[in-house]
Amino acid sequence: MDLDLRPHEACGIVGVFGEPEAARLLYVGLHSLQHRGQESAGIATTTGDRTFNHRGMGLVSEVFDPAIIGTLPGDRGIGHVRYSTAGSSSLRNAQPFTAQSRHGPLSVGHNGNLVNTRSLRAELEREGALFQSSVDSEIILHLMARSTASRVEDQIVEALAQVEGAYSIVVLADGKVIGARDPRGFRPLVLGRTPRGSAIASESCALDMVGAGLVREIDPGEIVILEEDGVRSLKPFPSVRPAACVFEMIYFARPDSVFSGVSVYEIRKELGREIARQNPVPADMVVPMPDSGTYAAIGYAQESGIPFEMAVIRNHYVGRTFIQPASEERSVLVRLKHNPIRSFLEGKRVIIIDDSIVRGTTSRERIRILRSIGVREVHMRISCPPHRHPCHYGIDFPSPGELIASTHSVEEIREFLNLDSLAYLSLERMLRVIPGGGERFCDACFSGDYPVTPEAGLGKWVIEAEVSEGREPAERRADRRVFAHRDRTGPERRKSHA
Amino acid sequence: MDLDLRPHEACGIVGVFGEPEAARLLYVGLHSLQHRGQESAGIATTTGDRTFNHRGMGLVSEVFDPAIIGTLPGDRGIGHVRYSTAGSSSLRNAQPFTAQSRHGPLSVGHNGNLVNTRSLRAELEREGALFQSSVDSEIILHLMARSTASRVEDQIVEALAQVEGAYSIVVLADGKVIGARDPRGFRPLVLGRTPRGSAIASESCALDMVGAGLVREIDPGEIVILEEDGVRSLKPFPSVRPAACVFEMIYFARPDSVFSGVSVYEIRKELGREIARQNPVPADMVVPMPDSGTYAAIGYAQESGIPFEMAVIRNHYVGRTFIQPASEERSVLVRLKHNPIRSFLEGKRVIIIDDSIVRGTTSRERIRILRSIGVREVHMRISCPPHRHPCHYGIDFPSPGELIASTHSVEEIREFLNLDSLAYLSLERMLRVIPGGGERFCDACFSGDYPVTPEAGLGKWVIEAEVSEGREPAERRADRRVFAHRDRTGPERRKSHA
Amino acid sequence: MDLDLRPHEACGIVGVFGEPEAARLLYVGLHSLQHRGQESAGIATTTGDRTFNHRGMGLVSEVFDPAIIGTLPGDRGIGHVRYSTAGSSSLRNAQPFTAQSRHGPLSVGHNGNLVNTRSLRAELEREGALFQSSVDSEIILHLMARSTASRVEDQIVEALAQVEGAYSIVVLADGKVIGARDPRGFRPLVLGRTPRGSAIASESCALDMVGAGLVREIDPGEIVILEEDGVRSLKPFPSVRPAACVFEMIYFARPDSVFSGVSVYEIRKELGREIARQNPVPADMVVPMPDSGTYAAIGYAQESGIPFEMAVIRNHYVGRTFIQPASEERSVLVRLKHNPIRSFLEGKRVIIIDDSIVRGTTSRERIRILRSIGVREVHMRISCPPHRHPCHYGIDFPSPGELIASTHSVEEIREFLNLDSLAYLSLERMLRVIPGGGERFCDACFSGDYPVTPEAGLGKWVIEAEVSEGREPAERRADRRVFAHRDRTGPERRKSHA
Amino acid sequence: MDLDLRPHEACGIVGVFGEPEAARLLYVGLHSLQHRGQESAGIATTTGDRTFNHRGMGLVSEVFDPAIIGTLPGDRGIGHVRYSTAGSSSLRNAQPFTAQSRHGPLSVGHNGNLVNTRSLRAELEREGALFQSSVDSEIILHLMARSTASRVEDQIVEALAQVEGAYSIVVLADGKVIGARDPRGFRPLVLGRTPRGSAIASESCALDMVGAGLVREIDPGEIVILEEDGVRSLKPFPSVRPAACVFEMIYFARPDSVFSGVSVYEIRKELGREIARQNPVPADMVVPMPDSGTYAAIGYAQESGIPFEMAVIRNHYVGRTFIQPASEERSVLVRLKHNPIRSFLEGKRVIIIDDSIVRGTTSRERIRILRSIGVREVHMRISCPPHRHPCHYGIDFPSPGELIASTHSVEEIREFLNLDSLAYLSLERMLRVIPGGGERFCDACFSGDYPVTPEAGLGKWVIEAEVSEGREPAERRADRRVFAHRDRTGPERRKSHA
Repeated sequence: MDLDLRPHEACGIVGVFGEPEAARLLYVGLHSLQHRGQESAGIATTTGDRTFNHRGMGLVSEVFDPAIIGTLPGDRGIGHVRYSTAGSSSLRNAQPFTAQSRHGPLSVGHNGNLVNTRSLRAELEREGALFQSSVDSEIILHLMARSTASRVEDQIVEALAQVEGAYSIVVLADGKVIGARDPRGFRPLVLGRTPRGSAIASESCALDMVGAGLVREIDPGEIVILEEDGVRSLKPFPSVRPAACVFEMIYFARPDSVFSGVSVYEIRKELGREIARQNPVPADMVVPMPDSGTYAAIGYAQESGIPFEMAVIRNHYVGRTFIQPASEERSVLVRLKHNPIRSFLEGKRVIIIDDSIVRGTTSRERIRILRSIGVREVHMRISCPPHRHPCHYGIDFPSPGELIASTHSVEEIREFLNLDSLAYLSLERMLRVIPGGGERFCDACFSGDYPVTPEAGLGKWVIEAEVSEGREPAERRADRRVFAHRDRTGPERRKSHA
Repeated sequence: MDLDLRPHEACGIVGVFGEPEAARLLYVGLHSLQHRGQESAGIATTTGDRTFNHRGMGLVSEVFDPAIIGTLPGDRGIGHVRYSTAGSSSLRNAQPFTAQSRHGPLSVGHNGNLVNTRSLRAELEREGALFQSSVDSEIILHLMARSTASRVEDQIVEALAQVEGAYSIVVLADGKVIGARDPRGFRPLVLGRTPRGSAIASESCALDMVGAGLVREIDPGEIVILEEDGVRSLKPFPSVRPAACVFEMIYFARPDSVFSGVSVYEIRKELGREIARQNPVPADMVVPMPDSGTYAAIGYAQESGIPFEMAVIRNHYVGRTFIQPASEERSVLVRLKHNPIRSFLEGKRVIIIDDSIVRGTTSRERIRILRSIGVREVHMRISCPPHRHPCHYGIDFPSPGELIASTHSVEEIREFLNLDSLAYLSLERMLRVIPGGGERFCDACFSGDYPVTPEAGLGKWVIEAEVSEGREPAERRADRRVFAHRDRTGPERRKSHA
Repeated sequence: MDLDLRPHEACGIVGVFGEPEAARLLYVGLHSLQHRGQESAGIATTTGDRTFNHRGMGLVSEVFDPAIIGTLPGDRGIGHVRYSTAGSSSLRNAQPFTAQSRHGPLSVGHNGNLVNTRSLRAELEREGALFQSSVDSEIILHLMARSTASRVEDQIVEALAQVEGAYSIVVLADGKVIGARDPRGFRPLVLGRTPRGSAIASESCALDMVGAGLVREIDPGEIVILEEDGVRSLKPFPSVRPAACVFEMIYFARPDSVFSGVSVYEIRKELGREIARQNPVPADMVVPMPDSGTYAAIGYAQESGIPFEMAVIRNHYVGRTFIQPASEERSVLVRLKHNPIRSFLEGKRVIIIDDSIVRGTTSRERIRILRSIGVREVHMRISCPPHRHPCHYGIDFPSPGELIASTHSVEEIREFLNLDSLAYLSLERMLRVIPGGGERFCDACFSGDYPVTPEAGLGKWVIEAEVSEGREPAERRADRRVFAHRDRTGPERRKSHA
Repeated sequence: MDLDLRPHEACGIVGVFGEPEAARLLYVGLHSLQHRGQESAGIATTTGDRTFNHRGMGLVSEVFDPAIIGTLPGDRGIGHVRYSTAGSSSLRNAQPFTAQSRHGPLSVGHNGNLVNTRSLRAELEREGALFQSSVDSEIILHLMARSTASRVEDQIVEALAQVEGAYSIVVLADGKVIGARDPRGFRPLVLGRTPRGSAIASESCALDMVGAGLVREIDPGEIVILEEDGVRSLKPFPSVRPAACVFEMIYFARPDSVFSGVSVYEIRKELGREIARQNPVPADMVVPMPDSGTYAAIGYAQESGIPFEMAVIRNHYVGRTFIQPASEERSVLVRLKHNPIRSFLEGKRVIIIDDSIVRGTTSRERIRILRSIGVREVHMRISCPPHRHPCHYGIDFPSPGELIASTHSVEEIREFLNLDSLAYLSLERMLRVIPGGGERFCDACFSGDYPVTPEAGLGKWVIEAEVSEGREPAERRADRRVFAHRDRTGPERRKSHA
């Protein structure tokens, strides 16, 4: 369904050091990062001499319960949530990825996408390495295990020196919790201070939950070591132009997360304000497509002075489990999820605000429903530029062929959607709103301007999870896999990477 | 947890006649009524000569899947969702309640609460009746089965003539779908027209989903018969003053439902406008407690000119399955569910809008969190009067002892919550906003002015489901029950009634 | 599969009075009666003022766990296991069947099959009764609820005076545990003495388990009341010729159960001895088809002097969950369940002993496998006469059309099975072996001589569980039902009765 | 419970080459090897260019269903079942163990126990290897992955040259199915011919099921390659004295399996005959403790002329799920599982035949029950010598401290069990009965005479599964693990090895 084809964040990570019952805090932190991944969840903790871990398929609340949290003792640990797409569901790929090495047990959770896995895997396999998953975390573990350095931070530096691409990682090893962010800082990572220790997380909203104050963002290329003596920082890599993901700001990150001292909520409102300035239109009300367009709509309304109205009602009970209607009845599902209030909208001129148009088919259906209940004019404003290019750094976009904007002009999209007017926020204006703007962010999905070029293929063997049929119990699905010999590239490939 | 102690609607009902694959429509309709009950769901259909039914514990999406919908053939049927509280969970009480009688199979779904069940059960038992549930539907079925009338509508009239209290029911019997609403019209019921037939539902939002146009509300005391020849209406009972539940308007009904031609969304906004007029206060922003206060907050902001800001972020992933933290850590759960944006709120004067304060403990925690992140002034406005009295007509309120407003003055509550100011909308102003106002509504939960007096006790034997311990599989819980000899009254009692 | 088409016992029942933690004893007792029913299990107990019950689909070990047993307090109670066939699986039909009546809560567990349910249901429905299951227990409860007698035993006498057919029942009501057996004593029922109280059960093996000594069989037509003062006996019905089920002796009852002072083990051995006398044949070994033919084979071997050899190995891990092979591969499943030892059997003359040939297809496959591994001669001896007639009293036989012996002569069966010789034990000789023999037993399934004639049909409405598809979770299946208008008779009908 | 403390076989393996729908055959084969392991099951298949695998916790019938079998295409593959003890349950340790290597995907299933894993793991870790399980299979995979040989059989030879101890393995790699048996042949492995290809399995009973004729046992130290051109054999290792596990013959292997042309059934009967000759005693009957003593009892009865009677009835419904009674009620569980027939045994002199006495507590309870029902004399005969020593080669015995025979004399055991007489078959007589006898078998568990000495400890880090609490869902348990730093030896250690 188009409804499920919105871009997917890869993963969320969290680490805690020095807090009794660390697992409980990690559990809470993962809950607040659930929007970054719903496929699997996992926690690894250590008491120093013993390492514990639990992973499972599903939401944090499905994977963990009090009994399981109780089996994860220790005052330090890391947690991970992973995204869900149909094809790559496998317990083997759940993280934190843990293995036993010469250095003892190592656990890694990874958010992002490495772009030189092909050559790295080939090289590691040539040296006799065995791979049991398709996640980049495993590659990082292999590289660490091969290091002869005695300190875990040096093992990590050695490992990361060999990888390219996007990564924010948390590592649990040798009694330390370590966070690292790639030199361009593609994916976010923040540092916090807890009452008795410290914490790291993908977003500051998770720090709020674990009772940590936000200290700062971890710098691109920085490695922070959470240990008994406090927090240490390393910057072992040469400095390059940063390229933080702008899509986090406009789409993925939770509105209560803060970057550069500004909340995502404010950024999104400002994006709405900006497009109100760029593309004003007379109307009776500004209506968000909930929940994705809500904050930009508040901004648009404030800037334009047109009333903000939540006249399309979202049903939060409709989830992935809904019985798929026959294609001619798609309308039912679309409406069940987003029902416009006929008595309030009839005869009105409305500006619909959303944060993206992906394939366009769902948006078209929504506008058809609006017209059918008698809305007089339907204008649409999108709070960012058109998405036209795949992401190589950890976001799971539909393939370019499925992105309507990569093959259609704005006017063609307007016509397809049967809108009275349609406008996207321009790239320049969008970057002007984002704190740090064009200097610090990657906008490749809009501009096609990629900071790092990925390898041409993924190498000799792709390990990939098999699509499993509809209603199979999770434990059954757990371990079915396919080892497929292939050599391909493009956006599909990234589905099997975290 | 206080978080779960918000008032609970009893049930939602839906009926469809004359549409192929009625079960699929009922399934969709129940999805849109899910807010009225999350404990159990059920559908009964008929092909004329055979009657099918399926019920289960859980959400509509958990109880049904395509295979099950496929086993429910027929072009007519009824559906039901039931609310969830800890103590009364039992498959036996799931509805539609179906039994075999002299008239053939009878199925009934009920929303509301009868007030003379004590004497009715005693009388029926005296005549040899067996009871297998604690739901009022079963009493109605017994009364119908005892009728010697040949037409199902006459059996229903005979049955309903004996019951008192609140009921909106759907009946599937003799190939007809019948809806009935008690003479005071406590609980809502609307009639719609589908492309090939007709439909009834608790709220008009369900009609939208089954592709039905809203024809009108079913009148208090009216019985509508959906049959081959169309829709027939009976009004067999003497007319009394209507007493529709005002709480539906301000709290329960979906915002996209329409009553008396006005959407619930507009009513709630208007309640917000009204309290802005009644209790204005200077502030930097109007912030709803999501999602319950959102629509009134929009109204308050529009009326006052103070900006509407969604500065408290709700996490929809936090559900009933969350691991309950130790009591000293309640704050974690409160904040996980509703996280305020520190960077945006710091130093600000805010007006928090909500639709109720129940026990007050959660609100207090939320305000404590707001203060802890540096909010300068916290004002609170509630879009209805204080809840002080139990409901006998189908709403599951906490007991009066748990309702803070039944034992504390507004000023005491303000102090308990540590607010700069607190105001509730007055009863008079509230009724002024509701279309039809004081003439047509029951406001007993605010005023204590009950339209119908319930019997003193529930009779000799209460059949009641046993509380089951945490992690027991649903199928295990299905059928454990307690038959308890007791005689009691008060709001707890209603937990075992639908 | 033919393998699953063996006759099914209807049910097993057990009752305990005066033992602390009665539920634990009932649980153990049901375990030992599991062979009498694997579809559902249930226990009802009482503490005097409160009645508890739990039922579920599946084996005793699946339905109960320590937590559930812990929710069933009291020193008295009853338990029930029900058989499993594909078509009638429904939680509604699980027993003990419990309802609330004028006399308070009543629980009944039933083993057998009433033959006048048609007229009873019609009469009860005419009086306004509602039926919610298709089990005979519910009819008995209705009849009890209609009684105006004040003592539960009198209510039972009134109820049983109206029913005809086969029943052994346990009732929990008014703090008493009551057992009753129909005047012909079709189904077994025994009385035992526990250290502190008393017990009743379908078979004496259950008494062994609950720590009870066998006192005696309950007489046909007898009602025993287990109460504070001890055990009381009523014989309110006129005496008729007894007709205990001979099939219990030769097929159903556990070998460690005792009837008339003789163990079933000894009876089955003696049946084997008898056919060795009736149809001797020279051979190298006597081989049972495990486990059904084992005891008769020991008897045959002892009588004939030919060595007993367990040369066909049964795999107990192969259960109902086995993936059904394509029909041409039935052989795989047959062999997986019963594998003959090639190296030991090659070139030998063997006498195969079994207790029945149902459709003949599985037996044929087994004999084909024996021939394929080089067995020289295959003789078969069946320890009872050919099954040719349906049972109306609680055994679920395949329909006559599926019973090979009802349409084929012994010689035709021998030829179909490709045997060197085949013999069944004659009716006369069989009855000679059974203690009490022709005087006390029903042999209608062999002779067609029915002690009681069943009604022609089952009445206006049959309530029947829908067949549910393969892998649906138990809780989903729980409550789907069909009310079907039909009028039919014959063995299929009994599938929906316990 | 003592009942669960019987020795456990480690694993069962099977491989098929050249048969369409290989997964179906492997599934059937695993069913027939289920007695060798009930903890987990797995199958890996290949279509040549793609490798598929599915593993899960539980019985073969629980792990697989038709849909899953359908996702495992290919005409070749391997299967594995693993034993179950409380402490080491983990999906990670389920087999076949599959990983991606320089040579492509490798899958290995292992039965046995390597004795030099400590130094192997240490060496591999030193070279940078990551370990993700505690199974020996993973070590073998690592060694293969490090080989620079191009042919898979050469990689295997290289790998196996480095390991010591007991192994029978199946490997799926490079489109071939390869079986290998360690030079002493501790664990069994047989070769068969299917209609279109070939097969290998732990026991010949599995060949029967996959439709394969038994060709021969694979020799100790032999490697067989199943490939397109047929079956090739390598014997790359120097010859040593064979040491096949005698315990397979007397205890583990299925009675329908054949070794050296003799069925296990016959061997066990002959063990019974032999002890009848060694320790005759006058009695009324020979009674097996079912099912373990059945075959030896038949032999004893045939040799002694005393009647064979199955007078102790085993309840197959009592499994691991039984609710554990309080310790004073152990008797209930013992009796529920094995109930003696009072009416038949009273006043009799019986000889009980069993194949082992482990802790003695269960046997003592059984004999107490026999005495309590009036058995006059109880003699016991065990069909092998007393178990006094741990096994280092793949059998999971209770620790020596729990083996009654390692700390008590036979007379002391007789007294503890309250027997009239007790005798074990002597080691010499036992070996005389086993085909090949003392020349070819390992009898270390009886004699303490170990063919290979294990390393003193398991090295720096043991990866071990955490004990999971009782009722946790399987998918939850799937991946919890402990990395424990420890250095220990003894029989407990082997629990974490397959």
